[in-house]
Amino acid sequence: MTYEAPVRDMMFNIAHIAPNPGDLEMAAAVLEEFGRFCAEEVAPLNAPGDREGSRCDQGQVQTPAGFRQAYGKYVAMGWQGLVHPSEFGGQDLPRAVGAAAGEILNAANISFALCPLLTDGAIEALRHFGCAQMKQTYLPKLVSGTWTGTMNLTEPQAGSDLALLRTRADAQQNGTYKITGTKIYITYGEHDLAENIIHLVLARTPDAPKGIKGISLFVVPKFLVSADASLGPRNAVRCQSIEHKLGVRASPTCVMEFEGATGFLIGRENAGLDYMFTMMNAARFAVGVQGVAVGERAYQQALAYAKTRLQGRPVDGSAQGAVAIIHHPDVRRMLAHMRATTEACRALSAVAAGWQDTSDVAMAEFLVPLVKGFCTEMSVHIASLGVQIHGGMGFIEDTGAAQHYRDARILPIYEGTTAIQANDLLGRKTLRDGGATAGRIAEMIALTEQDLQQGSSVAQDIAARLGSARQDFQAVVAHLLTSSPNQAYAGAVPYLMLAGNLVAGWQMARAVLVAEAAQDCDHAFMSAKIATAHFYAHHILTETGLQRSRVIDGAASLLDTVF
Amino acid sequence: MTYEAPVRDMMFNIAHIAPNPGDLEMAAAVLEEFGRFCAEEVAPLNAPGDREGSRCDQGQVQTPAGFRQAYGKYVAMGWQGLVHPSEFGGQDLPRAVGAAAGEILNAANISFALCPLLTDGAIEALRHFGCAQMKQTYLPKLVSGTWTGTMNLTEPQAGSDLALLRTRADAQQNGTYKITGTKIYITYGEHDLAENIIHLVLARTPDAPKGIKGISLFVVPKFLVSADASLGPRNAVRCQSIEHKLGVRASPTCVMEFEGATGFLIGRENAGLDYMFTMMNAARFAVGVQGVAVGERAYQQALAYAKTRLQGRPVDGSAQGAVAIIHHPDVRRMLAHMRATTEACRALSAVAAGWQDTSDVAMAEFLVPLVKGFCTEMSVHIASLGVQIHGGMGFIEDTGAAQHYRDARILPIYEGTTAIQANDLLGRKTLRDGGATAGRIAEMIALTEQDLQQGSSVAQDIAARLGSARQDFQAVVAHLLTSSPNQAYAGAVPYLMLAGNLVAGWQMARAVLVAEAAQDCDHAFMSAKIATAHFYAHHILTETGLQRSRVIDGAASLLDTVF
Repeated sequence: MTYEAPVRDMMFNIAHIAPNPGDLEMAAAVLEEFGRFCAEEVAPLNAPGDREGSRCDQGQVQTPAGFRQAYGKYVAMGWQGLVHPSEFGGQDLPRAVGAAAGEILNAANISFALCPLLTDGAIEALRHFGCAQMKQTYLPKLVSGTWTGTMNLTEPQAGSDLALLRTRADAQQNGTYKITGTKIYITYGEHDLAENIIHLVLARTPDAPKGIKGISLFVVPKFLVSADASLGPRNAVRCQSIEHKLGVRASPTCVMEFEGATGFLIGRENAGLDYMFTMMNAARFAVGVQGVAVGERAYQQALAYAKTRLQGRPVDGSAQGAVAIIHHPDVRRMLAHMRATTEACRALSAVAAGWQDTSDVAMAEFLVPLVKGFCTEMSVHIASLGVQIHGGMGFIEDTGAAQHYRDARILPIYEGTTAIQANDLLGRKTLRDGGATAGRIAEMIALTEQDLQQGSSVAQDIAARLGSARQDFQAVVAHLLTSSPNQAYAGAVPYLMLAGNLVAGWQMARAVLVAEAAQDCDHAFMSAKIATAHFYAHHILTETGLQRSRVIDGAASLLDTVF
Repeated sequence: MTYEAPVRDMMFNIAHIAPNPGDLEMAAAVLEEFGRFCAEEVAPLNAPGDREGSRCDQGQVQTPAGFRQAYGKYVAMGWQGLVHPSEFGGQDLPRAVGAAAGEILNAANISFALCPLLTDGAIEALRHFGCAQMKQTYLPKLVSGTWTGTMNLTEPQAGSDLALLRTRADAQQNGTYKITGTKIYITYGEHDLAENIIHLVLARTPDAPKGIKGISLFVVPKFLVSADASLGPRNAVRCQSIEHKLGVRASPTCVMEFEGATGFLIGRENAGLDYMFTMMNAARFAVGVQGVAVGERAYQQALAYAKTRLQGRPVDGSAQGAVAIIHHPDVRRMLAHMRATTEACRALSAVAAGWQDTSDVAMAEFLVPLVKGFCTEMSVHIASLGVQIHGGMGFIEDTGAAQHYRDARILPIYEGTTAIQANDLLGRKTLRDGGATAGRIAEMIALTEQDLQQGSSVAQDIAARLGSARQDFQAVVAHLLTSSPNQAYAGAVPYLMLAGNLVAGWQMARAVLVAEAAQDCDHAFMSAKIATAHFYAHHILTETGLQRSRVIDGAASLLDTVF
């Protein structure tokens, strides 16, 4: 159950896959050090934290044993600030490095990592939309991790549908607002890790327009902050209870009651949803990275088990006694599937992070739903394979494989379900620009195919499969552009899965170009990368044909089904 | 969280899909009555049983509240005997009816149902291989359910690999044996539901040949049985502990210690594995049916939720306010996927059960790994979709959707993992007869295609897709027949998934022939069946192409991967 950060693969992606590598030496040093910290201080708390869970008693939330100490060290070492502006105490590192660091922390302990993940989202929103005074009040403390952040969107009747929000914001004479309402599913809404919690809360003023155009965003600190930056009185917000969940059990998921709590408007009234989307895009990307993380952790555990569990003779008769199960073809198939999917998703998240640091907003935004939707759906499957490789042992909670299967299951749900991601990809990112960004991606992929055709026979084989997947993508985009809304949205998730698979597979294909050119240095790594990319092309990228037929041929039979 | 047995669909399968329908009125009466019993008495214990779990204290196992009473009624009403011989108090019903009843009990409460499932296996083994006296001693009590049965195969070092068994059987002067050893993962190895427990135990005599040819099968009752059939002294077998598991938590999974327990040899020494296979074939089939059951329960719950949860506006603008989420295309897609897969797996298990009642052993045995492997892998996916449809609510344990996701996960593992099923399908059922049985199935499918081509445009569309899947199957079988062992077994699971999908889809296609001919009676049911079959053909049967390429093109890249 140990964890070792895959820094070599991460650095390969930062150097060769992300568009703008930045300072490679600095990145490697940071990731090595963070990997060591997480392996030693955070990863060992993962299984015990799951068993113990967080507890809520009269509004106080206690995290599992060890979480406070580990978080204290995390803050002391400055890890929260990696990608944030130096102006507020951060280190300004490229987002591809931030994605790798995020994977490491989440692989070590996803429940622990959720607290910093939400803080990142709050930093993002305040940085872009807060006034100067707000930034000065909150950002240094959030960037250092001394305070943590939350996102308060969901209410019992308003999950994916924020138009149904009811939480009320009443303007006061002094320019503040009184916030009243109940929010649910608030990750780390209350806890004992930090001295203050900065809630970002969606609410409506009494005269706001109905629906999503009448939502405003407020800062509601747990403790009000005095002019001298010291903590003032306790605000009227409290944790009513925490949920009993399938997974991420160490992370407290709170029901929050706002009882006339003092809130401060961010930006303009009724523009809250736009601000929230900025924060959510960052959070969605980060959740996609959580998918990579859980996949990697599940893979490392399954690999270790498969190397030591003796059971069964080889099918080719090459040994008489029982061998380690990693010698059985189907165990190898499952391990290869886990590894290839995880590496491809890691590369997808690296390239998406890199595009976020460029000025190509359309490309960066196209990739967010792919990272969130594809990497998280894959993580559920990978964690399930991890259980399967363990056989009966996988079903026993003590083994730890089952925890990944439970933890992974939230990832395709929170920060927008896969269908919400797919609708975003289809509506805002594909149909709105008439397929222009999708077309640009297809052209770039075709160039990679041409490059691969100059390579080895394996590279040519991968080129053929990539080309076929790219044609599936183009056919689907062309079909969706001319479909009725019901038909198009019936195919939204298969379209997302196709596009995510293609863009992830494309990164693996790009990796082959690098690896074939660099075989003389680090031969073992480069050959493994080529073999993994080859497996991906044969076993996973081939799913695009299935998704193509689901989108193009499958809408009619779907819409005909009567329940 | 209520459950309603899908008796209409089951009766359709018994009447039209299984080869030998038997007495339909009797079957319908039995299933209606059993459905009512399970819905009222067994289903309500499912969620509370999961929360409470079974407990073990000093060798005594206490099942959750309500289990004893429900089991008492189950026995009093004679449900254990449905498919067993009337000679021992059973009702001799066809196996297709037994499969339907098994689905009902497991859908109501899979943890509860595991106890009768194991008893069925013990009955099967004793009936075929026990001597007359054994049958007389044990079968009436097992068939009535007054006593329950267990299977004791696994040991810590011997899971899939029974060659590694160590449990010892020392022959005594009086013809009995002393059984000594530790068995793990013994379902209902100890409990408080019945007055006696009949363990069937695999063990080795001191002079037995090594490996699987030296395994014998023994009856080891918890209480020895006196000549007058009354309970005698307690045998030296006890439950040491029970496992803390991901799912089926109400079912006690026991570590059993045999400390010189008195055992009675079944049949001949060293022939135990053959006997065990008979029992396991029955148990494997029953586990496949558990997959159908969990899928159905998860579907019913997700459907009910989707009809009542209001969230979001329709994509086609047909309403202004929030609508029930069942109106959103992707929710419909997930529900249709759950339903089509579940109905197809139900039909697959019905046809397989029917073949078991014929003398066509090759056909019956070919279908067992498909039912076990395909239906259980699908159940994990279906239960996962059930969580997804619930959104955030699905991740909260109180909702109940998560329980199905946890429960389903054991199904592709116990009674032989999917890889074990696939190796059986490939080695014993396909290669051994040179593809003859596989070829016969392909011919029968081709006849169904011809019949469909005479039908509606939907039927013709399904015929085309079925034909394409059948060709995938034939190409794969031809390929496997000429592959090296490593190459062939690298494709074993994709081959199983292809074959299971094809044979399940074939039953849906056969159902269309029936439904199109019978549209004037029960029009709503018949049209729904056609629509579901159509969805299956477009969205699920199309996966055969992917599996074909994994088997045929994918072995090389898999075998090249280095770990």
